[in-house]
Amino acid sequence: MKIPRLSVVTLGVGDLIKATTFYETILGTPPNQSYDGVTFFELPGTWISLYPLESLAKDISPEVPPARSGFSGITLAHNVHGKGEVIDIIERAKAAGARVMKEPQETSWGGFSGYFADLDGYCWEVAWGPMFEFAENGDLRFRDNT
Amino acid sequence: MKIPRLSVVTLGVGDLIKATTFYETILGTPPNQSYDGVTFFELPGTWISLYPLESLAKDISPEVPPARSGFSGITLAHNVHGKGEVIDIIERAKAAGARVMKEPQETSWGGFSGYFADLDGYCWEVAWGPMFEFAENGDLRFRDNT
Repeated sequence: MKIPRLSVVTLGVGDLIKATTFYETILGTPPNQSYDGVTFFELPGTWISLYPLESLAKDISPEVPPARSGFSGITLAHNVHGKGEVIDIIERAKAAGARVMKEPQETSWGGFSGYFADLDGYCWEVAWGPMFEFAENGDLRFRDNT
Repeated sequence: MKIPRLSVVTLGVGDLIKATTFYETILGTPPNQSYDGVTFFELPGTWISLYPLESLAKDISPEVPPARSGFSGITLAHNVHGKGEVIDIIERAKAAGARVMKEPQETSWGGFSGYFADLDGYCWEVAWGPMFEFAENGDLRFRDNT
């Protein structure tokens, strides 16, 4: 069987225009906005999509409350090639309006990372670690230490 | 500038062993469990990682409540090649203990999709749509209608 993949992560947002501007700034790439009322950032690997929170809840089921509060329970990680890149990206996110949840720092697992929350409170970790490397296509992989 | 990418999506779970078994069943691929206390499914594109919810909250910041309730605000989508595949995957998830939130059905946007919630309530959409196709490496893309 083919290995399945995560195609799209959709974030339910409070203000689609503001959220789109925020992500365009931090991702440094324009979205595809050919589809009304939804924003797609066609990133390599897995897309990031933005959709009004109420509409997203309704799309799942009428049982799903069209509001949220507190921690989503999910983090999104962007792994990078070095510590300096962690610092740069957290700075860029902050300048775009993100809230820095954890300043870039050494981690217990031997890496270096920081966290920011986007305009709707979704948490991103920006991380570098010595056990990670990148395949030619950019996919993350564990460094082969054998 | 290189286009950034989403490297890993981490789900904060209540029971790491049960959640690992669930995802191994529905993904049909074994995880890398070389790292204690965290599970990595090294999917092409973006990894899925499972980590105890309390630890995940603490990793972000002491301010983040180590509990969650209700809708996370985020959905994870697995785009597939046809309607039959949507039905098969939702069935497989259900058999593994998922709660079907929306039975597979035609969508307002001309596609066909269903939703299931995993053991911790995180919502997955399994979708097919005529506007989507797949690159050779499996990345999702919009069909070129020009």
